[in-house]
Amino acid sequence: MTATAIPGYDYGTAQVAHAPLSLADFELLKQAVMFGPDDERYLRMAGEVLADQIDDVLDLWYGFVGSHPHLLYYFTDGQGHAQNEYLAAVRRRFGQWILDTCRRPYDQVWLDYAYEIGLRHHRHKKNQTDHVQAVPHIHFRYMVAFMYPITATIKPFLAKKGHSPEEVEAMYQAWFKSVVMQVALWSAPYVASEDF
Amino acid sequence: MTATAIPGYDYGTAQVAHAPLSLADFELLKQAVMFGPDDERYLRMAGEVLADQIDDVLDLWYGFVGSHPHLLYYFTDGQGHAQNEYLAAVRRRFGQWILDTCRRPYDQVWLDYAYEIGLRHHRHKKNQTDHVQAVPHIHFRYMVAFMYPITATIKPFLAKKGHSPEEVEAMYQAWFKSVVMQVALWSAPYVASEDF
Ligand code: HEM
Ligand code: HEM
Repeated sequence: MTATAIPGYDYGTAQVAHAPLSLADFELLKQAVMFGPDDERYLRMAGEVLADQIDDVLDLWYGFVGSHPHLLYYFTDGQGHAQNEYLAAVRRRFGQWILDTCRRPYDQVWLDYAYEIGLRHHRHKKNQTDHVQAVPHIHFRYMVAFMYPITATIKPFLAKKGHSPEEVEAMYQAWFKSVVMQVALWSAPYVASEDF
Repeated sequence: MTATAIPGYDYGTAQVAHAPLSLADFELLKQAVMFGPDDERYLRMAGEVLADQIDDVLDLWYGFVGSHPHLLYYFTDGQGHAQNEYLAAVRRRFGQWILDTCRRPYDQVWLDYAYEIGLRHHRHKKNQTDHVQAVPHIHFRYMVAFMYPITATIKPFLAKKGHSPEEVEAMYQAWFKSVVMQVALWSAPYVASEDF
């Protein structure tokens, strides 16, 4: 799976908006989630562990969304029709995001794409990437809420490659910190800039 | 420590604003964080475990905030002067919040006070409760970020009273879900109502 092969995955391209947060402020955000060099190291390890399990992780997460009509809703036209091409297109980028979370350096390019992902959940840019006619916006309370399933459900997958309980725990904590940090970044389009 | 003895702790009083989320929508939010009856049970257990450790937990959290100038900032006048009375007043309500998170039924009264806590972090109502002249607003990205320290640091305290690893883990997961859910609720004043 190469980056350019995924439709709409614009990481590092000129299409991507510029993050409103400076790298200096991002360093302060890292401190607030206690994110450090060890976490980077354990995310790399998690990347190795998860690389051949991406489809299983996505099956679980899509199963969770699909079994809750009020969540699946955001992939529908608002009249009860799920857009299967939309679900499939997002799924590929979601898989790439798992790898990016583990492997990418968290630099300006990454920060900009984090902002882009926020915009794509918000009415500002939802649906545009895949040219779909779905409901226009994802309600913010669910963006926060998903931190729980996205974090908690990853642990068993991290434990599947024979690492010690300490290593699994360290990978899990690094993942947890990164997800929290990313949802914090993704909130930018939802919040007035002086409040963000 | 009785509820009424804490200045500014207005739980269940007419001073508290009405939550913008209905109880029906709150049920859907619970589903999104996988929160169920077992979690309520384990939160009660956590309440027993934490009750005589509140000051130790708060020492840790206040130590974390106090050792980061960009976080302590929100308790200052913006010119580098921490408001010690403000810190102390909030600390008492923060301690009560730990107990409320574990013990209160998550009903309309609780939902309303969750909204109130959100307002008190936002420029809408920050500083008013304690009649202080501090910086006017807490930036939202840190509200999300704090989920990590507030969650991760609680686990050792949950393990201090001789419960089995399975019980400690179940208390920890219930706490994690509740914190995620509460930050989701607290985001209401920060986000336009149609986006929330
Ligand atoms: C922790 C929270 C969440 C994570 C980690 C997450 C992750 C992602 C990722 C990685 C993408 C693809 C980004 C890209 O285009 O490269 C995406 C898109 C999407 N997600 Fe989420 N998501 C979260 C919350 C939610 C929620 C709560 C919903 C609603 C059920 C949702 C529904 C969608 C939809 C509909 C898209 C496509 C947006 C578009 O039209 O471009 N996501 N998500
Ligand atoms: C998960 C995130 C957070 C939790 C669980 C939390 C918890 C609380 C609680 C329980 C209160 C007292 C509410 C009451 O009046 O009854 C409070 C108030 C306060 N918190 Fe937070 N907080 C969080 C994020 C933050 C952040 C990021 C800061 C900034 C460093 C902060 C600074 C304050 C301040 C300054 C007050 C007093 C607000 C006022 O003027 O009334 N909090 N917090």
